[in-house]
Amino acid sequence: MFENKGRTEIEQLGEFGLIDHLTKNFGISNKSTVKAIGDDAAVLNFEGKKTLISTDLLLEGIHFDLAYTPLKHLGYKAVQVNLSDIYAMNGTATQITVSIGLSSKFPLEAIEELYEGISIACEKYGIDVVGGDTSSSKQGLIISVTSIGYADEKDICYRNGANEGDLLCVSGDLGGAYIGLQLLEREKNIFLENPNIQPDLEGKDYIVERQLKPESRKDIVESLKLMKIKPTSMIDISDGLASEILHICKQSNKGCNLYEEKIPIDPMTYDTAREFGIDPTVCALNGGEDYELLFTIKQSDFEKIKNNPDISIIGHMTEASAGCNLISKSEKVHPIKAQGWNSLKGIQE
Amino acid sequence: MFENKGRTEIEQLGEFGLIDHLTKNFGISNKSTVKAIGDDAAVLNFEGKKTLISTDLLLEGIHFDLAYTPLKHLGYKAVQVNLSDIYAMNGTATQITVSIGLSSKFPLEAIEELYEGISIACEKYGIDVVGGDTSSSKQGLIISVTSIGYADEKDICYRNGANEGDLLCVSGDLGGAYIGLQLLEREKNIFLENPNIQPDLEGKDYIVERQLKPESRKDIVESLKLMKIKPTSMIDISDGLASEILHICKQSNKGCNLYEEKIPIDPMTYDTAREFGIDPTVCALNGGEDYELLFTIKQSDFEKIKNNPDISIIGHMTEASAGCNLISKSEKVHPIKAQGWNSLKGIQE
Repeated sequence: MFENKGRTEIEQLGEFGLIDHLTKNFGISNKSTVKAIGDDAAVLNFEGKKTLISTDLLLEGIHFDLAYTPLKHLGYKAVQVNLSDIYAMNGTATQITVSIGLSSKFPLEAIEELYEGISIACEKYGIDVVGGDTSSSKQGLIISVTSIGYADEKDICYRNGANEGDLLCVSGDLGGAYIGLQLLEREKNIFLENPNIQPDLEGKDYIVERQLKPESRKDIVESLKLMKIKPTSMIDISDGLASEILHICKQSNKGCNLYEEKIPIDPMTYDTAREFGIDPTVCALNGGEDYELLFTIKQSDFEKIKNNPDISIIGHMTEASAGCNLISKSEKVHPIKAQGWNSLKGIQE
Repeated sequence: MFENKGRTEIEQLGEFGLIDHLTKNFGISNKSTVKAIGDDAAVLNFEGKKTLISTDLLLEGIHFDLAYTPLKHLGYKAVQVNLSDIYAMNGTATQITVSIGLSSKFPLEAIEELYEGISIACEKYGIDVVGGDTSSSKQGLIISVTSIGYADEKDICYRNGANEGDLLCVSGDLGGAYIGLQLLEREKNIFLENPNIQPDLEGKDYIVERQLKPESRKDIVESLKLMKIKPTSMIDISDGLASEILHICKQSNKGCNLYEEKIPIDPMTYDTAREFGIDPTVCALNGGEDYELLFTIKQSDFEKIKNNPDISIIGHMTEASAGCNLISKSEKVHPIKAQGWNSLKGIQE
């Protein structure tokens, strides 16, 4: 996949040379960035605000497969995955650090692709790259991103603030990233069996993009502010709706009723899941990687939100003793179980 | 190395179970930690101060060799390496995030050892663990630490503030970590050739500890404050004295004279280097991993510092056009060249 652009061995640059080369086009767009790359530590100024920090590790063979993941997309996704955690606090993301471990199979041109994706994501979301580390790796590609942001104390949304009667809401639609992954895996396997068959992803752009190039929901955080809604709790959906709902219920010490018919699923997700013989609801509940926001709001905020096409009300919070329940389309009650992506096994459980 | 403590497979716990298990004993000791582990992001409060952020990646086979690195030491070192960057800004380190990638060869007991080292380092240095990520890895052990701290704006020491005539100072002694590594590598090779021969590290505790269990120089930052000295520039020595001096010279646009006879080298480092047929000065200049602080001070601060047993004055800054020079014991002038540890090659150049 790196053949067309020439091949410059990274050793020729050395570590400092590589960092200089990759970061020379990174500008600074946030007033809070006092000093970015180039010293022992970045210096940030969040005077009067709370600082938010989150970090994620992305490993080749576990979190991504370079057989079907373009490096530019991967860089973009690595940033989005991390920003999503800052937005899930109802915060403003402003900086990231990026550490990369590289095996010798990657020429400079490949890493430039990766950094181009990082750069595009940062530009689009107004993020400054303020530090990082590069290292050789005996172990394929390793990406560790730490995201940094801020919020006024009164605006921060934790997972533990949901109250009985609160409405359970979710942005966008769910399950697409998971079913997109199934599609990519299928086409990879067909290709491995017969390299003459080209991948058939026609008409599947949306779900493939959901997997390869997710968008964190900065826009939802901004919309909520405009609507003057402060969620009582919030979390981003990285491990699947079921797992995230249980986090909110557990930390808020509440139960919930989730209505299957209310879960937003895109028609392409729905149809492709059916093609694969998978229940679309299961994709939404357990698939993960959608990076949508799950949050609870007071009932009194219902009027403000009810006509927003990008937010679905999917249930409500109950007392803890009532449990966490999924009400199926046939009105059966099932306890919600976390069967999210377990990255420690690297397989869907 | 993990045989004696039983073997619990990590899969049994799952990701959330593992995080809960490993972090249950981490307390909070800093007022600036508003919310540590358990939400999408940590929440920190540095009101009125600047926030400092630094990050490092440690990879098995590149940065450490588990053949002779106890996991407890490795956890301790991973923390120290990162704190060192915050101290090098003349800041106070307060929090870290720790992300770990684990292959299935590690049972829970091994990771508990690693976290015990992390925990001991955090307790000793007053650091809160406020987040992280755990993942399976197909690729050995991966450790990514981000350190967070703060400083008053007026106290921050960048690399670019050195002036002509400033005194060049270094804490502690140099070269020990490098020669300790040579010793460990030698004993490993002897063991591999003949497993009946036990490692002979007797009387070499100091240099072995310099390699396996370095201490970041929080104490020096505190001493400088007590002495009312603000360095004009500062950097920590991770890649070797030569490389770090060149960073200061380049970023400050100055030259320097470094006096070989003034470079602090411990007698054990000196003698062991001679045993290996290596010039002890080269160990200090190019060895790296000492995590001492290199800094410049105004000449008017000389009286305050001259009797401090833990700080050596090793040279002075000159105008840029004079170049960066090492004055040897025989009073020959050599231009200083960076030949530091190049982790992109994983070998000493």
